[in-house]
Amino acid sequence: MTTTYCLRIKCPDSVGIVAAVSGFLADNHGWITEAKHHSDASTGMFYMRQEVRGDSLPFSLAELRRRFQPIAERFAMEWSIRSSDERQRVVLLVSKQDHCLADLLHRWRGGEYAIDIPCIISNHEDCRQLADWYGVPYEYVPIHRADKDAAFDRIEALYREAGGEVMVLARFMQILPPALCERYFGQIINIHHSFLPSFMGAKPYHQAFDRGVKLIGATCHYVTSDLDAGPIIEQEVVRVNHSHGAAEMVRLGKDVETITLARGLAYHLQDRVVIHENKTVVLT
Amino acid sequence: MTTTYCLRIKCPDSVGIVAAVSGFLADNHGWITEAKHHSDASTGMFYMRQEVRGDSLPFSLAELRRRFQPIAERFAMEWSIRSSDERQRVVLLVSKQDHCLADLLHRWRGGEYAIDIPCIISNHEDCRQLADWYGVPYEYVPIHRADKDAAFDRIEALYREAGGEVMVLARFMQILPPALCERYFGQIINIHHSFLPSFMGAKPYHQAFDRGVKLIGATCHYVTSDLDAGPIIEQEVVRVNHSHGAAEMVRLGKDVETITLARGLAYHLQDRVVIHENKTVVLT
Amino acid sequence: MTTTYCLRIKCPDSVGIVAAVSGFLADNHGWITEAKHHSDASTGMFYMRQEVRGDSLPFSLAELRRRFQPIAERFAMEWSIRSSDERQRVVLLVSKQDHCLADLLHRWRGGEYAIDIPCIISNHEDCRQLADWYGVPYEYVPIHRADKDAAFDRIEALYREAGGEVMVLARFMQILPPALCERYFGQIINIHHSFLPSFMGAKPYHQAFDRGVKLIGATCHYVTSDLDAGPIIEQEVVRVNHSHGAAEMVRLGKDVETITLARGLAYHLQDRVVIHENKTVVLT
Amino acid sequence: MTTTYCLRIKCPDSVGIVAAVSGFLADNHGWITEAKHHSDASTGMFYMRQEVRGDSLPFSLAELRRRFQPIAERFAMEWSIRSSDERQRVVLLVSKQDHCLADLLHRWRGGEYAIDIPCIISNHEDCRQLADWYGVPYEYVPIHRADKDAAFDRIEALYREAGGEVMVLARFMQILPPALCERYFGQIINIHHSFLPSFMGAKPYHQAFDRGVKLIGATCHYVTSDLDAGPIIEQEVVRVNHSHGAAEMVRLGKDVETITLARGLAYHLQDRVVIHENKTVVLT
Repeated sequence: MTTTYCLRIKCPDSVGIVAAVSGFLADNHGWITEAKHHSDASTGMFYMRQEVRGDSLPFSLAELRRRFQPIAERFAMEWSIRSSDERQRVVLLVSKQDHCLADLLHRWRGGEYAIDIPCIISNHEDCRQLADWYGVPYEYVPIHRADKDAAFDRIEALYREAGGEVMVLARFMQILPPALCERYFGQIINIHHSFLPSFMGAKPYHQAFDRGVKLIGATCHYVTSDLDAGPIIEQEVVRVNHSHGAAEMVRLGKDVETITLARGLAYHLQDRVVIHENKTVVLT
Repeated sequence: MTTTYCLRIKCPDSVGIVAAVSGFLADNHGWITEAKHHSDASTGMFYMRQEVRGDSLPFSLAELRRRFQPIAERFAMEWSIRSSDERQRVVLLVSKQDHCLADLLHRWRGGEYAIDIPCIISNHEDCRQLADWYGVPYEYVPIHRADKDAAFDRIEALYREAGGEVMVLARFMQILPPALCERYFGQIINIHHSFLPSFMGAKPYHQAFDRGVKLIGATCHYVTSDLDAGPIIEQEVVRVNHSHGAAEMVRLGKDVETITLARGLAYHLQDRVVIHENKTVVLT
Repeated sequence: MTTTYCLRIKCPDSVGIVAAVSGFLADNHGWITEAKHHSDASTGMFYMRQEVRGDSLPFSLAELRRRFQPIAERFAMEWSIRSSDERQRVVLLVSKQDHCLADLLHRWRGGEYAIDIPCIISNHEDCRQLADWYGVPYEYVPIHRADKDAAFDRIEALYREAGGEVMVLARFMQILPPALCERYFGQIINIHHSFLPSFMGAKPYHQAFDRGVKLIGATCHYVTSDLDAGPIIEQEVVRVNHSHGAAEMVRLGKDVETITLARGLAYHLQDRVVIHENKTVVLT
Repeated sequence: MTTTYCLRIKCPDSVGIVAAVSGFLADNHGWITEAKHHSDASTGMFYMRQEVRGDSLPFSLAELRRRFQPIAERFAMEWSIRSSDERQRVVLLVSKQDHCLADLLHRWRGGEYAIDIPCIISNHEDCRQLADWYGVPYEYVPIHRADKDAAFDRIEALYREAGGEVMVLARFMQILPPALCERYFGQIINIHHSFLPSFMGAKPYHQAFDRGVKLIGATCHYVTSDLDAGPIIEQEVVRVNHSHGAAEMVRLGKDVETITLARGLAYHLQDRVVIHENKTVVLT
């Protein structure tokens, strides 16, 4: 596998951004393998993602970043350059239901995600065996109603010790404290088992059953302190009908949750997702 | 085309319903061309729809209804038998946007709906030319803020005079008075331009744009006095992304509204939809 | 879980079949929890599937079968009655790619399939570890070009010894001998990685890439001696575009294969699939 | 509506193309409203589409083309610049079935396609009334088995006289002569009523019914002398089951054909489609 550098940019739109960036890359013989940009008329923002072959450039990643700095400053960019050699550290949180966890671990083992999983954190012991088989440390952190703060302090400490860069709530059935959501905004990805903004909160399949909808869905989104209201990364639906009880919706929904989280997480890991206010630009 | 009779039943579930109905039909040599039933465990209700070839029975439609009466009473059925020869009278209501209207009229002219359309009612003149081409009388009923009651009285009168059996709100951008909704409950079908229960009320595509959803949808439902909260018949979605502004969502959404209303209306006309409380059983 | 009996019927269509079957069940106080039938106008065949609560009947399964026999004979039925207590014995065959296998095992462990998996058979050792974790015996049967017959004899022997009732080719990349296909017709389920009849045979994703299709798919079907031409149970597709190389189609396709096989197998195990000539009726 | 210029490029991939193009645009203060590019690793080709606001440039369209010429030559580009003010002239061909025609005309009248439709050509009189209502000249060109050449000469003459730039076969049930296909390659768009490459040729829904597929589809493609084998622009599918006879597949398929052609044509008219060998790059 060739090393690639992924350059991701967000800045106020103006004439000359693409010219400056692509001129810079061309002057250094950068071989661009994928490029996406988006000018947002409603916000006046510009978004760009470029993948460049590392071996096409005559200098190191550090030097690339150093040399890009003046361009970034000129256009007031929020930006990052990430090498495909740097494996992001992704911590998975799960409660009892293991379908999303099992799917992510299977994809990871098959090479679909080039990440490290330093640990799985759970408020239950149910998924330990699964973690063991994949050789991932399993941290059991019970969450008692009386002392939730201590539990979440422990979770945060584990995440920090693990060098976590992404926290995935793979059907983690606890509400994170607002402070935690804010401290790691843009790093915490949740899968909600409804087609948001329909059926926020608890038991969405039962809500869907009661309303008699003809499609049910799942939503992968960034977590904010505003429950189930963070920026949406990806959504998917599946058809249901009158013969499906809430229990069958739960079962059918599992497959939708699984694929929606898998896709949304991939977009995030590949630096395709840029957050602006409460929405995302997904540069696929 | 052979005449078929469509028998539709709703009753409390119990042993022997299917046996009684199919025994009755078999004793009379009824040739069943399609049959669907559904036992609903959560409500204890039973639903059935049977299509029988008219020429297989040795008596008339009236006699069929008369002879079926004792079975219906035995099981406390709500029921109907409709002949495919009886063309339902469907009144279409529209405001300015004509995509649903044009689609329904095109399908009707092509023979997809075996109905009569005695008139189109609108609070604008915009769609008159379209109605003219299809040879359907166009009733212009302006709706002024100051005197909505008179306008809706006029609409109701037109519907009655036309012998209307179904009222389709094909992008009719006015809220019907509660009394009207109640009087014709189960006859009034609306297309709402969102995936309900998300984005009820006005400007749903703008709401969807603001929320940053990745799929937008449409909902075909029965109208109740509770705005956008009636029993859902059919829903459909289409994928959108960050590059779609609200105006583009409006345009993309048109195709979804069109197909969702076309499908939902077909289910209703074919007596496939049974309402129970605030939900539907759709026997397709 | 209540025991249910599933009655599945195929016979020439005629008046009175439903009446006879439902009359028989009603006379014995059978509580029908799900019922589907289909009259096929083009073939003159009738298909039916009924689920009855076991505890509603006053006699045993064996007695049910005995008493149903005369009705079956009267209408020349092909029929079966299966109890939900009888766990079908499903043998899985796999080569190197493990995504379908992992998915089926995960669903099985989670209770989605009430089956026994007596063994997994493979012509490679790659999936042994996975089988071990789920506690399923793994039979390695290498297939050498020079002596395929012996290998397939061994596979058939293993299937018989295991008491196999269903053989699932979960990405088993070998062509079964015609005699084997014929001997177990209706028992062998394959997942083909294209939207059949497009791209039969080898390397379908590469064929799809070369043709430039905009959707790729997967097909779950019964295996016959006519390669990739057996009765289709289920199909699904996913959107691709010019940016997807063949390798990315392979990756995207995995998710489609997985869900298509999972669904198709469920239909088969629930006795929802009836084969007629080279097509299926799927009573969902 | 602001005038935009759409620049479309195809050339061998190399370092510096984007820099040269975007540098050129930036030097002239060009305000880019949408940009897409694609580097194709398997063919070594580069594709680009840029939309620029006309009023942001200090010179005319002709001058833009003149000044761009040296860049195009430097990179051996196939290229075009089209102004949104130039309405393309689209000729529609139809036989008896009018669903695609009616849909395209409705969209056109609603402003979805900014094109001129100089005429509709048909080998039948069936759709004349529809054309009349939309005020489009209707040219009846009967096609007799004995003298097809004369008929197609007449069609070509009409297309030329009309100044046609795009020819849409909106369910035109005749095979064009190879010479015609070659002369206007890239201008002739067909809607085929199957998910190609499945079911090429005649009566695809009947073929689909016979094969027992669980999804049927439609394909919008460029016409070549190789029947139903030209570059694919867009495809879509819809679910069917055993209860759908061929006639019902025909009816269901109409909606898929309609939307697939509408979408594919829009991509073509917006200069989003680039043909390379027998495939397309669709820059959406």
